[in-house]
Amino acid sequence: MTRIVRYLRALERMEEAGRVRTSSDELARLTGVTAFQVRKDLAYFGSYGTRGVGYTVPVLRRELRQILGLGRKWRLIIVGMGRLGQALADYPGLAEGYELVAGFDVNPEVIGRTAGPVQVEPMDRLEEVVRSRHVEVALLTVPEAQAQPVAERLVRAGVRGILNFAPTVLSLPSEVAVENVDFMAGLSRLGFFMLNPRWREEMMG
Amino acid sequence: MTRIVRYLRALERMEEAGRVRTSSDELARLTGVTAFQVRKDLAYFGSYGTRGVGYTVPVLRRELRQILGLGRKWRLIIVGMGRLGQALADYPGLAEGYELVAGFDVNPEVIGRTAGPVQVEPMDRLEEVVRSRHVEVALLTVPEAQAQPVAERLVRAGVRGILNFAPTVLSLPSEVAVENVDFMAGLSRLGFFMLNPRWREEMMG
Repeated sequence: MTRIVRYLRALERMEEAGRVRTSSDELARLTGVTAFQVRKDLAYFGSYGTRGVGYTVPVLRRELRQILGLGRKWRLIIVGMGRLGQALADYPGLAEGYELVAGFDVNPEVIGRTAGPVQVEPMDRLEEVVRSRHVEVALLTVPEAQAQPVAERLVRAGVRGILNFAPTVLSLPSEVAVENVDFMAGLSRLGFFMLNPRWREEMMG
Repeated sequence: MTRIVRYLRALERMEEAGRVRTSSDELARLTGVTAFQVRKDLAYFGSYGTRGVGYTVPVLRRELRQILGLGRKWRLIIVGMGRLGQALADYPGLAEGYELVAGFDVNPEVIGRTAGPVQVEPMDRLEEVVRSRHVEVALLTVPEAQAQPVAERLVRAGVRGILNFAPTVLSLPSEVAVENVDFMAGLSRLGFFMLNPRWREEMMG
């Protein structure tokens, strides 16, 4: 799916620049993917392009946005309003596809503070807000030990998708979508590939 | 590589609990991977375990740490000391495997501030610090438009690995290791899988 997101970003830039046509070769170059892979991915979603003409930028962009659910605004909360949570609340790209409904924390010094479009609320309001505001997605930025119990509270209250920033594997019902943002794992991979540059190609190939 | 990091985390918890033996079945259960995959991954790195006995926890843990380069302390800087950079400087896990040497920013209001173990320095000191302190790794938390030019400065100064938090694909010499932490892509994937739960299995299978 990361590839689909990359294609979409490239298409958005082309559209800003007033471009109408693109090709799998160009998308490949801009996203670091092979042209074969681009054609295969887009065909999987029903976009075939025309030989010698390529793809129409605004049409392909609209299709990919729909596939990714970007046409709709997901209702979202942030649980854990430390510096990471606050940075996320302020993140420029967030407002485009998401409606940030609320942020929660246990720390009395943080509760009441403004972060991006919301004021930080106490954790005991979590269930009430999730239910009354029909929250669908949560960004989970609580300490590692809290991640699993807080995730379970979220799911019981009705959240269907969690972006987990804690370095732990959440164990949740299979109908709940979970994605992990684990930068310590990213750092470990980095060290590994710096020590073993050849293994990268072997594992990729 | 994410799997290797997960195995390591599970082993660390076992060792803390005083456990001496484990099995591919147990590692599989704790990390959300199949037992077959666990055996295959560990065999790839030369750890075979003994049928009916399994793996010795401290031995396997030491081997995995070595493979991941965790025995050594990488010298690291953070470029971009906004809230995300500051949150990273303070991150509890960072001090274990990394020596945070410095943090940099262009904002005069941030320069001089203490964040984790460092004081924020101005960007024009970047090359000098990278060279004199033999910095190997950089966490890149600058705005999207700055990511590519700053990454090029880092590489010219001698940095060999970059953990990139900006939502952009860096174009750098192939001998430089780059890992991306792109939480907007994570959010997009989440939306996609919430809309198309069946496609997840299809793509995984």
